[in-house]
Amino acid sequence: MYSMTTSAVHPPRGPVTRKDVARYAGVSTAVVSYVVNGGPKRVAPATEAKVQDAIRVLGYRPNAAARALKLGSSETIGLIIPDNSNPFFSQLAHAVEDAAAELGFALFLTNSDGDLAKERRHIRNLAARQVDGVVLASVLSEPDLADLEAAEIPSVLLSHSERPAGLTSVGVDLAAGARTAVEHLVGHGHLNIGLAMGTTTANEADDREQGWLQALEGAGLQEGPIARSAFTREGGYAAGKRLLASGHRPTAIFASSDMQAVGILRAFHEAGFSVPEDFALVAFDGSVEAEYSWPPLTTVEQPVRAMADAAVRALVGEGRGEPPRHHVFPTRLVVRQSCGCP
Amino acid sequence: MYSMTTSAVHPPRGPVTRKDVARYAGVSTAVVSYVVNGGPKRVAPATEAKVQDAIRVLGYRPNAAARALKLGSSETIGLIIPDNSNPFFSQLAHAVEDAAAELGFALFLTNSDGDLAKERRHIRNLAARQVDGVVLASVLSEPDLADLEAAEIPSVLLSHSERPAGLTSVGVDLAAGARTAVEHLVGHGHLNIGLAMGTTTANEADDREQGWLQALEGAGLQEGPIARSAFTREGGYAAGKRLLASGHRPTAIFASSDMQAVGILRAFHEAGFSVPEDFALVAFDGSVEAEYSWPPLTTVEQPVRAMADAAVRALVGEGRGEPPRHHVFPTRLVVRQSCGCP
Repeated sequence: MYSMTTSAVHPPRGPVTRKDVARYAGVSTAVVSYVVNGGPKRVAPATEAKVQDAIRVLGYRPNAAARALKLGSSETIGLIIPDNSNPFFSQLAHAVEDAAAELGFALFLTNSDGDLAKERRHIRNLAARQVDGVVLASVLSEPDLADLEAAEIPSVLLSHSERPAGLTSVGVDLAAGARTAVEHLVGHGHLNIGLAMGTTTANEADDREQGWLQALEGAGLQEGPIARSAFTREGGYAAGKRLLASGHRPTAIFASSDMQAVGILRAFHEAGFSVPEDFALVAFDGSVEAEYSWPPLTTVEQPVRAMADAAVRALVGEGRGEPPRHHVFPTRLVVRQSCGCP
Repeated sequence: MYSMTTSAVHPPRGPVTRKDVARYAGVSTAVVSYVVNGGPKRVAPATEAKVQDAIRVLGYRPNAAARALKLGSSETIGLIIPDNSNPFFSQLAHAVEDAAAELGFALFLTNSDGDLAKERRHIRNLAARQVDGVVLASVLSEPDLADLEAAEIPSVLLSHSERPAGLTSVGVDLAAGARTAVEHLVGHGHLNIGLAMGTTTANEADDREQGWLQALEGAGLQEGPIARSAFTREGGYAAGKRLLASGHRPTAIFASSDMQAVGILRAFHEAGFSVPEDFALVAFDGSVEAEYSWPPLTTVEQPVRAMADAAVRALVGEGRGEPPRHHVFPTRLVVRQSCGCP
């Protein structure tokens, strides 16, 4: 059986160009550009309808690479996160994707896996790709952004608690969040409150530790034991075992991330202890996994969506080009059962 | 105190161009292109060293958009996943990112949130951006790829169990994996094995259900109760409650995803039941969350890294342009405690 397709009877043609669209719609190529790019000049609705009709009929696809060259923009932002097997960061990445899409930007996602060399490599690659901006959840409080600066690519630090000079950053008040968590445990009558503190490659001081200390001081309590390990499930598991083996075993623990708390729960379950009966536990982040652990975790929630929106707007939205500032969002204690509440 | 920087004494200049590099290195601009793009012509090592030196000294950054136009390639692939709050998909996304990076490709990440209209919109956007290829974990077994085909952009279906005509796809043998899981529960002596089956927007038949049926038939057992709900923690939670309320309450359950099993665990814990003492549970996916639930989940592991590698290689690696085929990977039962094993 033979079949005759359109391409068999018409001579092959190249891709439909802006010129073809302009001719079909009876407008200039500039007007086609305005419609395709949503500006810079406004186009009358009737004219725009004619152009959109021509685009549809001819099957015109604006060439993204050619547009990027002309506009000096690829309508793309890059995101670097330390670990997307941590649901806090995968939720953050999703929120950044949504916020970017709303402004017409696509998202290059890269994971640094908490590795400084890998973070630097991603920064260099994104600079070479001439993205419109980079959202960086760095492993450092003062990351090296020389490659982006040289390429004049703006960047915003996300999930960041410092106020780095000359950079816009978005974060929460970690110390205040940690204080709320520890004060809640104090309210349950605990006198020996330990800390499972996450550490990064950079091993810098963290405001969550300050918040824990401040709450203990405020209540006139002595420092409980500290277990330092990675901000991961595995890290929490190791910290949980160490806290159980502690000579001055705490009755309550503040964990600096949900993932660590999940690991601590496993260590306690394995050793035959119950939470909150034997140990109370409060975590930090407010990721979805905290809601489905057993028992469900009382945790300090970071407003992921608002933080992602602020970062993207500062980078390529209405905040673009404004002087650097540090956006601080409040946290919220989400009370479930791991703290001892009914 | 005054500081004098280089930029303060030299007049500002525009970006370094390929021409500048050529002049500095004493070669033609074509040779600079060959070095930057790794071809198409070969360059003598001594000449390449001169060009690399010039690139370093002048701080030249090849313009990605200009290169994409010239090469007909943006060195970019798109990935569409249904839900990155599911760690199986966030691990899959990370593996695709790594596999793509190894071949020099950056990754546009998009989430369809299990929504068909959103999936179509992402496909259209990626086509307009002229990516080199799209990896699609679709909500449908036969997704609509017309936009990609019209733009001559290749695509590969990932985490796919069907053999769609004319398309390359990568997946596991879902039925065989499910059979292994259910046979393991049969081996523990269970006679009434229920099924928590995930459903998608498309609500199509799923081979995991077939595998469950086949294992029951093979053991001469009657069908246990089925609870259908979303492939999520929430879906599993609802399914767990329904299975508990079932008139013919099962003693063991096969859940079609880790996330559903995590939700089922919560429903059982809340109702005061123990796993595996009161109910045995085996899940599917092998994500990291399954290792840290309580009890840790026995689960059918999908080889995420191998699947991602195969998809990316078929799309833009050595498999590019080869006739469509369906890559099937074997699964592996990871035995932990939820099944009743010690």
